[in-house]
Amino acid sequence: MAVHDWQRPLDEMVRARAVEAAQGKAPFDILLTGGQIVDVITGEIRAADIGIIGPMIASVHPSGSRHDAAVMHDLAGRFVTPGFIDTHVHLESSHLLPQHYASVVVPQGTTSVFWDPHELANVLGVEGVRFAVEASRNLPLRCFLQAPSSVPSAPAIEVSGASFDGEAMEQMLAWPEVLGVAEMMDMNGVLNATPRMTSIAHEARRSGKLLEGHARGLTGPRLQGYAAAGIGSDHEITSGEDLLEKLRAGLAIEIRGSHLYVIPDVVGQLIALPHLSSQLMFCTDDVPPDQLLATGGISDVLRRAIAAGLKPVDAIRMATFNAALHLGRHDLGAICPGRLADLLVLDDLASISVTDVFVSGIHAAHAGSMIDPIQAPAIAEPENSVHIAPLDVLDFRLPVRSVTHGEVTLRTIKGVRFSEWSEVRLQVVDGFAVLPPADGPNGDLNLLFLQHRHGLHAGGPQVGLQEGLPRLRGALATTYVHDAHNLLVIGGNPEDMQIAANALIACGGGIAVVQDGRVLAIAKFPFAGMLSSEPPAQVAKDFIALREAADQVVEWKPPYWVFKTLEGLSLACNPFPYLTDLGLADGLLGELVDMEVVAPIARS
Amino acid sequence: MAVHDWQRPLDEMVRARAVEAAQGKAPFDILLTGGQIVDVITGEIRAADIGIIGPMIASVHPSGSRHDAAVMHDLAGRFVTPGFIDTHVHLESSHLLPQHYASVVVPQGTTSVFWDPHELANVLGVEGVRFAVEASRNLPLRCFLQAPSSVPSAPAIEVSGASFDGEAMEQMLAWPEVLGVAEMMDMNGVLNATPRMTSIAHEARRSGKLLEGHARGLTGPRLQGYAAAGIGSDHEITSGEDLLEKLRAGLAIEIRGSHLYVIPDVVGQLIALPHLSSQLMFCTDDVPPDQLLATGGISDVLRRAIAAGLKPVDAIRMATFNAALHLGRHDLGAICPGRLADLLVLDDLASISVTDVFVSGIHAAHAGSMIDPIQAPAIAEPENSVHIAPLDVLDFRLPVRSVTHGEVTLRTIKGVRFSEWSEVRLQVVDGFAVLPPADGPNGDLNLLFLQHRHGLHAGGPQVGLQEGLPRLRGALATTYVHDAHNLLVIGGNPEDMQIAANALIACGGGIAVVQDGRVLAIAKFPFAGMLSSEPPAQVAKDFIALREAADQVVEWKPPYWVFKTLEGLSLACNPFPYLTDLGLADGLLGELVDMEVVAPIARS
Repeated sequence: MAVHDWQRPLDEMVRARAVEAAQGKAPFDILLTGGQIVDVITGEIRAADIGIIGPMIASVHPSGSRHDAAVMHDLAGRFVTPGFIDTHVHLESSHLLPQHYASVVVPQGTTSVFWDPHELANVLGVEGVRFAVEASRNLPLRCFLQAPSSVPSAPAIEVSGASFDGEAMEQMLAWPEVLGVAEMMDMNGVLNATPRMTSIAHEARRSGKLLEGHARGLTGPRLQGYAAAGIGSDHEITSGEDLLEKLRAGLAIEIRGSHLYVIPDVVGQLIALPHLSSQLMFCTDDVPPDQLLATGGISDVLRRAIAAGLKPVDAIRMATFNAALHLGRHDLGAICPGRLADLLVLDDLASISVTDVFVSGIHAAHAGSMIDPIQAPAIAEPENSVHIAPLDVLDFRLPVRSVTHGEVTLRTIKGVRFSEWSEVRLQVVDGFAVLPPADGPNGDLNLLFLQHRHGLHAGGPQVGLQEGLPRLRGALATTYVHDAHNLLVIGGNPEDMQIAANALIACGGGIAVVQDGRVLAIAKFPFAGMLSSEPPAQVAKDFIALREAADQVVEWKPPYWVFKTLEGLSLACNPFPYLTDLGLADGLLGELVDMEVVAPIARS
Repeated sequence: MAVHDWQRPLDEMVRARAVEAAQGKAPFDILLTGGQIVDVITGEIRAADIGIIGPMIASVHPSGSRHDAAVMHDLAGRFVTPGFIDTHVHLESSHLLPQHYASVVVPQGTTSVFWDPHELANVLGVEGVRFAVEASRNLPLRCFLQAPSSVPSAPAIEVSGASFDGEAMEQMLAWPEVLGVAEMMDMNGVLNATPRMTSIAHEARRSGKLLEGHARGLTGPRLQGYAAAGIGSDHEITSGEDLLEKLRAGLAIEIRGSHLYVIPDVVGQLIALPHLSSQLMFCTDDVPPDQLLATGGISDVLRRAIAAGLKPVDAIRMATFNAALHLGRHDLGAICPGRLADLLVLDDLASISVTDVFVSGIHAAHAGSMIDPIQAPAIAEPENSVHIAPLDVLDFRLPVRSVTHGEVTLRTIKGVRFSEWSEVRLQVVDGFAVLPPADGPNGDLNLLFLQHRHGLHAGGPQVGLQEGLPRLRGALATTYVHDAHNLLVIGGNPEDMQIAANALIACGGGIAVVQDGRVLAIAKFPFAGMLSSEPPAQVAKDFIALREAADQVVEWKPPYWVFKTLEGLSLACNPFPYLTDLGLADGLLGELVDMEVVAPIARS
């Protein structure tokens, strides 16, 4: 298909041709007739025809008033909207290469994404962001990039593959493809004005570009302080009340689709307000590949927001015009002359049933599929990112320092995502703690293993205790664990854990499920330990196989199923207990913690 | 008073202090308690207190929850709104120096203006824009500047004091104080893609800054073409229908207060739409000094919009948040932590009764007056801009080329502002046309005189005929005539015209009214022939005296009174007949026209 060189400025000759065609002095390249335009500016739905020249809209004029065009499409009364803009996404969570990701979301109606390559950066540093830039060039999906601010996201308690400060920001913000600094996850660093977070924010301001937020759980004085630091947005909304406080605090809100219960509460709050602010938009953040294929990205979020009571035109404005405003892209987000021809044709608004997608004036997708295959960019994918020698089964046992034989009290991480510290008293044999039988007291303990994989320090494996899941009948391993993406294994026995870990070390990363010494399922991510080389259908199939295999290993408890659980087990920027590559860590305090209990953890 | 060094980036140490104070770790500098905040984001009016650190808002928190501040103000239930932003204004039309202009509008609630120094630029070139930058430094009014695009505004048919192309734009757009290119008045140039207008638009795009419009009378294909050229706004709205078409075309709309009948029609249209767009804001454009003092600038526009049916909170959002969005100033326009503390305290919303004004956290105005006088900037004002030697009475007679004695048919400019070509048959004596008696047929003819005043060409006086006003019993002269600001005189006899003209040549420019050989009133504008050295009250008084004197000279017909008429007599960028320094000119064709009728003017 034609190349979308959208990262280059529009040719002035093309614009001159559009000005001519609009006035009727020349024919259009493409003319869309008989459609009903969703006017995201006025809120109207109105009949109008759209004349296109090259990549841009040249004219929006009364239906049937022009017939001069090289190509005409009769839309037969269907709706036309601007292309959807996903305002905060980590493409990495789809485990797809950008060209594969585009082939899934473009037919669903997403024509632009504001991509924070935070995960790639935490493995590869600035080179990971540069890969994101180069890998998304010429795609039929505009990938605007964010400069990851949180590399690592919890600098005191974990080590990822790189460390960014203001200088790294300055370097990335100078690239035209980068529109701002990504979510400022180190909330404590922002509120305590650490030199690192201050210099990062300073560079964002100096560049005149965006400074995006991550205001998870912030309320009251801490929220005011976070906004006073000049941070302009949040996508970590957990309720309608949370949304209202942050909207009032001046944050632009990227409403996320990832938590099913959030959308109805948020929509209920929004439609009760006197004004539906231009500060509201949508994002996907992290969507696994099977879900991306089955229910969709932004289109699915929109569908659920509409089902919750948001008027379709309002929801569409949020996903288009408001998002373009936030990104400062006045050439996107509305069906008006002078803007880029990113257009969706829909059968029905409420169900967001997209039939056709135009990107930069090119008919890119029809009936859920790309019309032409997307060319892979001519760049080398980043391989060999798992810097760990094969592991021994002993690496997965839990060593005790203070006792060789007898009993010990150890801290456990109780729960997932919203975890808390707990304690357990265990037997010690030969200097290793022993898990009690699965069917007895403390049967809900599992071994947690973390190993630095970036070659930046020589610290060996960290082993800890996770409490609250049934004893795993096997092991799960992954190299995709936010945010440092070290090698994580959870399991009921060291033998299966060793096999799972070594399987991933051998293939350059991925996710593996092991039971009884056998690999039940594996998804291989040879690129940066997080991206597959396979096409979307295969990666989605791998994920379904992983889920099925994982179900054989453990009974999951809602709402955190296999991948949410795995990915949340070391999310040390959040205010909970975690195991990291440096040991047990308290995310709230930002400090490492001894596993062997001497005194309770002081929380001032 | 404290200096407002708002053009410099905010000190990072101040921000760090704000982040601390927001969290309660340090007291505020100023705390505003007991107010009701107009939340322009959510549309709510809600009780909240505002903590200020230096120039910025540090916290907006529950009423009464904090008491630690160096200075506290109890607002006793009054309303607090963000400062108003005037999105398109030529300060020159007030004839006040910027510090004097600020002393009038800041107490009314205007804390930012987007100033197009188009008039200064047409006299002084880039130096005029530089003067605007320097003269507005450290004022308690944020003067964001536009790079004038229309110097001259009608290049084929008049000569102003400078000529700007893309290169001049590049120079001005590099200044941080300049936020974009000003109204693209040469609409034909845009639609025909002349090299000059194309290069100007190109520079705006290359800079990433705004490209502002002037879409006077554009509709249908011409409007689509103008928007396709990438022009982003319009302030030349003449009706609700005009507004709707331009809003649909994607133009941001700066609703202007200058035409009384427009506001009710526009508001009627807006409140009938499903959505009140963030693309809507307000501007003043040109307001004479007496009106500015008597009824106000943006505050008066708001008051009238609210009287016409717009909800006060919606009107205020348009004048604050929407305007800041358009200007790309995310640090203005809302009462939120991290934004600048430009705040208004109001007794009543519907009547926009501003009692107190804070600018950059400084209490700047109370009860309609500045609290401290504004320091004049330490720069030299531009004098000696009227490059014309004293004129002879013969210069004001109307020479006829083809006839020495007898009769001749001459073209006349019939009407003002919406003028048209007409013809008249006159007596010729000694090579000059003679006006018929005032009380007989064709008594509604007056002599019109235009003389280039910028020293850029040697062409002598141009004399023509204006039709439709009663014969003037005297003469009016001005050096402030949009857009080229040459010397214009209109009168019933050459003698009074000569006296009026020479009075202005002697004082460096201004407006004069002469009758029976005597100067009845004169306002002197020694700076650039358009700005007075006097304080606002004196300039307003001069204007009232000018109006009274003008009333003795001619009976004006509504809606065009003395200054509107004078200023509109040579507005050659509009599609009507005009007299310019080059002769009779057709604004629609963009061509000069012979006064002596040989054939009708061909309009293709």
